Amino acid sequence: MAVNLPPPDPATLLPVPGVDLGVAMAGVRKANRKDLLVMRLAPGTAVAGVFTQNRFCAAPVVLAKKHLKNEVQALVVNTGNANAGTGDEGMRRAMQVCDALASHLGCAPEEILPFSTGVIMEQLPAERIVAALPHALLHQDDWASAAEAIMTTDTVPKAYSRKVRLSRGTAVVTGIAKGAGMIKPDMATMLGFIATDAQVPSRALQALLERVAERSFNCVTVDGDTSTNDSLILAATGRGPTASGRRDLLKLEVAIGEVARSLAQAIVRDGEGATKFITVAVEHGRDEAECKRVAYAIAHSPLVKTAFFASDPNLGRILAAIGNSGVRGLDTGKVDLYIDTVRVAHQGGRDPAYREEQGVAAMKKPEFTVRAVLHRGKASSTVWTCDLSFDYVKINAEYRT
Amino acid sequence: MAVNLPPPDPATLLPVPGVDLGVAMAGVRKANRKDLLVMRLAPGTAVAGVFTQNRFCAAPVVLAKKHLKNEVQALVVNTGNANAGTGDEGMRRAMQVCDALASHLGCAPEEILPFSTGVIMEQLPAERIVAALPHALLHQDDWASAAEAIMTTDTVPKAYSRKVRLSRGTAVVTGIAKGAGMIKPDMATMLGFIATDAQVPSRALQALLERVAERSFNCVTVDGDTSTNDSLILAATGRGPTASGRRDLLKLEVAIGEVARSLAQAIVRDGEGATKFITVAVEHGRDEAECKRVAYAIAHSPLVKTAFFASDPNLGRILAAIGNSGVRGLDTGKVDLYIDTVRVAHQGGRDPAYREEQGVAAMKKPEFTVRAVLHRGKASSTVWTCDLSFDYVKINAEYRT
Repeated sequence: MAVNLPPPDPATLLPVPGVDLGVAMAGVRKANRKDLLVMRLAPGTAVAGVFTQNRFCAAPVVLAKKHLKNEVQALVVNTGNANAGTGDEGMRRAMQVCDALASHLGCAPEEILPFSTGVIMEQLPAERIVAALPHALLHQDDWASAAEAIMTTDTVPKAYSRKVRLSRGTAVVTGIAKGAGMIKPDMATMLGFIATDAQVPSRALQALLERVAERSFNCVTVDGDTSTNDSLILAATGRGPTASGRRDLLKLEVAIGEVARSLAQAIVRDGEGATKFITVAVEHGRDEAECKRVAYAIAHSPLVKTAFFASDPNLGRILAAIGNSGVRGLDTGKVDLYIDTVRVAHQGGRDPAYREEQGVAAMKKPEFTVRAVLHRGKASSTVWTCDLSFDYVKINAEYRT
Repeated sequence: MAVNLPPPDPATLLPVPGVDLGVAMAGVRKANRKDLLVMRLAPGTAVAGVFTQNRFCAAPVVLAKKHLKNEVQALVVNTGNANAGTGDEGMRRAMQVCDALASHLGCAPEEILPFSTGVIMEQLPAERIVAALPHALLHQDDWASAAEAIMTTDTVPKAYSRKVRLSRGTAVVTGIAKGAGMIKPDMATMLGFIATDAQVPSRALQALLERVAERSFNCVTVDGDTSTNDSLILAATGRGPTASGRRDLLKLEVAIGEVARSLAQAIVRDGEGATKFITVAVEHGRDEAECKRVAYAIAHSPLVKTAFFASDPNLGRILAAIGNSGVRGLDTGKVDLYIDTVRVAHQGGRDPAYREEQGVAAMKKPEFTVRAVLHRGKASSTVWTCDLSFDYVKINAEYRT
């Protein structure tokens, strides 16, 4: 059901020197599916991370944030169980996984970052994960397998690569992500991992990741529900060229940003029940924050999203959503609204020249842009979202069965 | 599909002396259905109103707010078209309806309050309404017919009555409302009209209505979308006993509050696609505002609402919604969660004594209560909502067809 999202071609996914991937079937929730990923990092790798703002953050998120301060040796990721809302016992079990992996690798458990995704408020079957670790460590898997091993309700694995020429050589950037529901990332999405072989100082890496997250994962929404487990990790192994100087860092940021935006958009294209991929652009606002607020008001309205699903240009719903966005002093009499290039509303009311067939034609496409022009400033913001279909309800009504 | 909501028994709906009702079929959107209501008020009637906070408020809302300052002679309500997002032409057409009714009644157009509900961003067929006015004026209809004449996607008309004994006699309170989608009232719901024959000073009436709205219509949500046309009107004709003194006013407020709460809850019971009626109670918060914020975070989460639909006690989604509510300094390790009397989470994690069969049994009922206890203060707040079903998507994907 994913919108214009072919599965990644493994041949296009570039290995990242300094990153070893291993995948296993631990049977966390279902038998015979890849559900465990171990990502080993070469010594000296710089690691940056951004995490969910949900106050009920999961046990592994609490540990990963803490362990990020140490020299990270490996990441361990399971799907099938989020280990969130699990109290002290959840912390104990997340630590049990770190302990087991650390003893295999001969490092401290505090040098392991754990990640979990799946159902909330059920205890993690840590012993099954521990039992499957040797298999993951003995195998050398590729990024396509790694992307598969972290899927939940995703229908397509998500992985992208870029090459970027720096002053001292060419670096690679490869990333994977998962997530299809409970998607309105706040800092990051539910599990994204990006690696580069470039050498980047830790502090620069963290700042770069925060800027990238702000313009990629923090600009997508499926259902407005920020997950308990959102984590985005960026690792720079330093096995490739050094990013030296502002220009190199900027080029690297562009490449990492492209991978991150492709991953973030892939999550929306594969959003639960999605049949349309919609870009919501809000322009000529006073500042970026108010533009984003209006964009999210549109992208979160269930009435707007069901109209998208039906290809029904019931566009008054978009005006109503803009009116509800809570932007102070918004003059609705100045607002223009476009679907792709068709102006449907002018100065807050229906454009007299607009004919409904135009709206239907634009909205029938699997991808289109909703553009709201506020005419009160120079700022703009863009958010990507999907429609609300029968299948969203079906998937979430039947999620655990 | 409405949840425990029988149609009103006309015999239980008390006429309000001083209020004359007339209904007609104007063919605003569909032929052969009641879609026009005229409510005439006896001279000297005090009228109070609260209106939507949506900045795209509809043309009739703009006029009704303005005309409320005058001595109101009549209300005119159409369904089928909201006259919102219609610009200057929409204002002109709303005024055209006021003009026509005023000339029949021999009053000023500024003494008429116009209301519209239905599709947004299409021009009001004012000429059809004008043509149907004489029919509405020549008929003496009852409150049950009036409730029918304002329905949109409602499946059941909504009307309630109460008697209240005041110091100088018994007064009646009767109210009607409509609304099934685009329901997250902010001040009022999409069209509620309550009348009493009690005599109440205008200023007291407005204050009373604002308090009542805050605890009734402003506590319900279907889909989180605040409409462009929300209006709640309270008329006190003074044809019955005078409400003299604090005690009488308090008793009247209780009676009006009961009618308002019944109407507000009826809107949720008949929410688009609703199969469950859910009370969300948040307790022991620091103040009412934060409790309401948490309650709405639960009541608006599409993931929580689809779990309600499926009777699936996937209760981690409720914890995640609480964590997303944006309440500062919330200690999730203190939060308890109940479904009816079953404690499902204790101190932020799954209650060890909780068995899933208990959750399923509670959630299978057509009505249940979700209770979150924050353990950080003495305030509480309650919100009423419904589930998110296939039919919500169906109704909104097909609304205009």
